[in-house]
Amino acid sequence: MEIKRERMDHKSEACIASINAVRDALYVLNGKWKLPLILALSNGPQRFKDIQRALGEITPKILSKELKELEMNEFIKRVVFPGMPVTVTYEVTPYSRSLDNVLDELRSWGMQHRQRIVNSRRSKLAETA
Amino acid sequence: MEIKRERMDHKSEACIASINAVRDALYVLNGKWKLPLILALSNGPQRFKDIQRALGEITPKILSKELKELEMNEFIKRVVFPGMPVTVTYEVTPYSRSLDNVLDELRSWGMQHRQRIVNSRRSKLAETA
Repeated sequence: MEIKRERMDHKSEACIASINAVRDALYVLNGKWKLPLILALSNGPQRFKDIQRALGEITPKILSKELKELEMNEFIKRVVFPGMPVTVTYEVTPYSRSLDNVLDELRSWGMQHRQRIVNSRRSKLAETA
Repeated sequence: MEIKRERMDHKSEACIASINAVRDALYVLNGKWKLPLILALSNGPQRFKDIQRALGEITPKILSKELKELEMNEFIKRVVFPGMPVTVTYEVTPYSRSLDNVLDELRSWGMQHRQRIVNSRRSKLAETA
């Protein structure tokens, strides 16, 4: 009885630790833009306009906010080149590479999930045909 | 010149496909609660109150909305046991297991990120001491 209880507590402690770790991760990576943004910069430095184009329908205001938060958390670096006019680019930091596995898993999950939805629509169409 | 351009287009197409796949994933898993919620249910079915306790400060209104969305996307199942009073539990579906790798990566990333912040605070404190 004593042992069983201990095991259950242990299990639930481990579970709570997992939940907290995932919540910590999501707290920093919050929203729908941060991970796609890091991915967009992973092939090399880009300017604001290029990032905006790569991400699709993000507004300049939101992009600017997201870039600031990513810079604050040391995932990206803002680099200013003096000149007329001044050029500003954004690039990923070495620390952002720590997210490689997370991004890989999300990418392959996203692909299989889209395929699943396509298949399920297709079989529904076949049923009604 | 022609080859280089083709390579760049190819690279950028692959990059856009990756960004879209990650955005697809984040679209379904949006917000800070869905993944912790799936994790909380991964050890077995739970009632509403138990899930609320496991997640910490989530409000009943938000939890109810998140559960509905997860049910709609076939990650969890709502099971009603008749009786007086009726008992309702929530459990993960087999499809939610497809998120195991995503959750594992987010969990270990979250742990190392928290450790990184703790270390950086510690070294800042040591500097000022």
